[in-house]
Amino acid sequence: MQPYELSLSAAADAIRARQLSPVELADSVLERIEEVDPHLQAYVTVTAEHARRAAREAEGDIAAGRYRGPLHGIPMALKDVIDVAGTATSAGSRVRANHRAQADSAIAARLAAAGAVLVGKAHTHEFAYGLTTPQTHNAWNTGRIAGGSSGGSAVAVAAGAATFALGTDTGGSIRVPAALNGVVGLKPTYGLVPRHGVTPLSWSLDHVGPITRTVKDAALVLTALAGHDPRDPASLATPAVDYRPGGGTDLTGLRIGVPRTYYFDHVDAEVEAATRRAIGRLQSLGARLVEVGIPMTRYIRATQWGLMVPEATAYHENTLRTVPELYQADVRILLEAGELMPAGDYLRAQRARTLMRQEWARLLEEVDLIVAPTVPATAVEAGQESITWADGTVEGVSDAYVRLSSPANITGMPSLSVPVGHDAAGLPIGMQLLGRPLEESVLLRVGHAYEQTRPARELARTT
Amino acid sequence: MQPYELSLSAAADAIRARQLSPVELADSVLERIEEVDPHLQAYVTVTAEHARRAAREAEGDIAAGRYRGPLHGIPMALKDVIDVAGTATSAGSRVRANHRAQADSAIAARLAAAGAVLVGKAHTHEFAYGLTTPQTHNAWNTGRIAGGSSGGSAVAVAAGAATFALGTDTGGSIRVPAALNGVVGLKPTYGLVPRHGVTPLSWSLDHVGPITRTVKDAALVLTALAGHDPRDPASLATPAVDYRPGGGTDLTGLRIGVPRTYYFDHVDAEVEAATRRAIGRLQSLGARLVEVGIPMTRYIRATQWGLMVPEATAYHENTLRTVPELYQADVRILLEAGELMPAGDYLRAQRARTLMRQEWARLLEEVDLIVAPTVPATAVEAGQESITWADGTVEGVSDAYVRLSSPANITGMPSLSVPVGHDAAGLPIGMQLLGRPLEESVLLRVGHAYEQTRPARELARTT
Repeated sequence: MQPYELSLSAAADAIRARQLSPVELADSVLERIEEVDPHLQAYVTVTAEHARRAAREAEGDIAAGRYRGPLHGIPMALKDVIDVAGTATSAGSRVRANHRAQADSAIAARLAAAGAVLVGKAHTHEFAYGLTTPQTHNAWNTGRIAGGSSGGSAVAVAAGAATFALGTDTGGSIRVPAALNGVVGLKPTYGLVPRHGVTPLSWSLDHVGPITRTVKDAALVLTALAGHDPRDPASLATPAVDYRPGGGTDLTGLRIGVPRTYYFDHVDAEVEAATRRAIGRLQSLGARLVEVGIPMTRYIRATQWGLMVPEATAYHENTLRTVPELYQADVRILLEAGELMPAGDYLRAQRARTLMRQEWARLLEEVDLIVAPTVPATAVEAGQESITWADGTVEGVSDAYVRLSSPANITGMPSLSVPVGHDAAGLPIGMQLLGRPLEESVLLRVGHAYEQTRPARELARTT
Repeated sequence: MQPYELSLSAAADAIRARQLSPVELADSVLERIEEVDPHLQAYVTVTAEHARRAAREAEGDIAAGRYRGPLHGIPMALKDVIDVAGTATSAGSRVRANHRAQADSAIAARLAAAGAVLVGKAHTHEFAYGLTTPQTHNAWNTGRIAGGSSGGSAVAVAAGAATFALGTDTGGSIRVPAALNGVVGLKPTYGLVPRHGVTPLSWSLDHVGPITRTVKDAALVLTALAGHDPRDPASLATPAVDYRPGGGTDLTGLRIGVPRTYYFDHVDAEVEAATRRAIGRLQSLGARLVEVGIPMTRYIRATQWGLMVPEATAYHENTLRTVPELYQADVRILLEAGELMPAGDYLRAQRARTLMRQEWARLLEEVDLIVAPTVPATAVEAGQESITWADGTVEGVSDAYVRLSSPANITGMPSLSVPVGHDAAGLPIGMQLLGRPLEESVLLRVGHAYEQTRPARELARTT
């Protein structure tokens, strides 16, 4: 096994035990990037020189007894909407040509303090405003989409081109590419991870979170990221938590809600079957399954778009006027639509959100978490614009991919996507666990228990 | 001295000591209403029969040793946007003809539980959307405006036609009429007093609070009103607090901010002089005066209107379409303007609000509270539409009255208006104390200390 194939936890254990050097690990990941990235295009920028220097520093620090914890010496990728001092934040856009971040984002600073080693900035759908990331190819089949908007991050992690990565998630942008590339993606509770220095898409829906190969890895990264930062107005003052899940797999006493509405409508049969098999595993671990109805489903789509579209436009107000031609057509159309939206529509969306939050909170009194498919279909072919469902209904690809993930953005509740197998074409399938605000630990415990029931996963076949 | 002339505290002391019966007090207030309300028009509805019955019950309870506290047996008025089961909530509008509230508002229920006696519903500017309350006349000069939107409440308290009253305040609607009628008005911290069952004007700016004759009275009412109610999404979970100020007047160690910008610009000379005299009294009580600059003053007006206008329209969406002719022209124009407002303008206002909150919080680290005039002018003549300032600037009456009070609505900080004298025409002048969120106690302590330095006030001359 090559070092780049190690999970974060395994690599951290090996580094801590001085069986693996951070330099060796960084070199292995950088070689892997050279090997696969020409086919996958996960990276905008590979910071090889910086990574080698940081890895040497980590090696020296650890040799000198200054071990900082499980992220020390671990190679990682940041979605290219996350500022790192002195490097460009392209946000996947020509609008950002010649950009240079003045300072680290809050999370880049936290990861640097934890000793993580930046190997590169990963491709994003332009300004994180889309669900495909057209620059990048799916890690399992380069003819398929990467998903988005954190497509580069998910593909890098899936292909061994980063040991972990960060993404952002406004309607599903961490979980959708995680599901489509067979890796773990966590959208934490709104406000848990500060967004200072992260290019916003829609401030009331934006979240930052980890993309990893295992649930335990996600817990390690979240532990380093979480915590108050007054520079993000939505940042919560929460106590420090060690999110590492315990080793046990006994889920006795846990009530798991299985949606009887919404989450299995217009879902591919193989996706549904894999999700229900995974739910069966959770039951066999002792969890009690409870059928639940999903509240206010008629309002989900209008609320997501009603909040996102005008908030997104607000950020782009000036450049939309001065350099509209630099935007991609799909993003520009959405931004221009935001200029025409009446305040009343936004307010209706805000009011619906308030009610949805209340209804979901009530639902999450009946059960401890809810399980559902992350996305209704596996990765579609690049360029495919719509999905035709069994009943003949035609749905836009973006609408389909955001449909099951957006309730967690609207309400702010945490959602963890875990891989639950592959379809007949070999494409990964994801299941999401939805929980109460600030109860990431419950989701991580269940996701981790589920993982123990499955054989260790291999990295994506990349060619 | 007649019972109706007693302050709430004095009446409560007399009732508790069984020197005054609630029936006697209610009769005295009801007689006073009959005497003065034909001239003042403070009330939409006088609930004489209900009041006499409630007063008899209070008398019986107290005689039987079931004294509930300082509001027991005290006659009060509710602004007519506050639901009381079985009675109409007119909201000052023909749109509400034939209305009948199904249940008590949260605050009506709390006051009833505290034993307060409803004597009537007080006039409001239509749907609380204006600063004059044209139905009602100023308690000191019937040719002058009552101020608004809680005009009826303030006039009733000022004239002895209620021992206390509740108002609502979205841009100044408690404090403006309190100042113009020479009584005390408190806009508490956003979320401290629940709004369930109160007709909304603008949910992110709306507050409920007391209008009383003394600061101590305001503290007694606030103590009964404050506390969480899950039916108001903005309601804060705060511990119960007894807001009664201690007896002392020593303000040594307190830092009082005196604005060197904004709050004394375009302010009538007599209002400024009275306010500065009152500030001098606070200094003589030991407080240290600190000159402060007010943040983001250029944004105050646009932010207040940018938040209020679309939120107000959202509530009236249906009736504006079905029965537009039932609205008064001034209110209908504002509501229709809200339909045309783009989401971007609302979002700009939200973003400005976030920054203003941060800047005010920083300012309130330097000082413990800030003192300023409540309104820049005393009550104008009924029908007067604008004020011409010394430098020739012409300002609309509503713009002028809301100008100094709206920062507390935008930021959510508490603001207490206290009477500080009269102008040469005999019209009352108000000073506001602005403090940190949830630090009502500081404002009440300072306001109470200030009151001790002045001779006891008389009720308004009503004819």
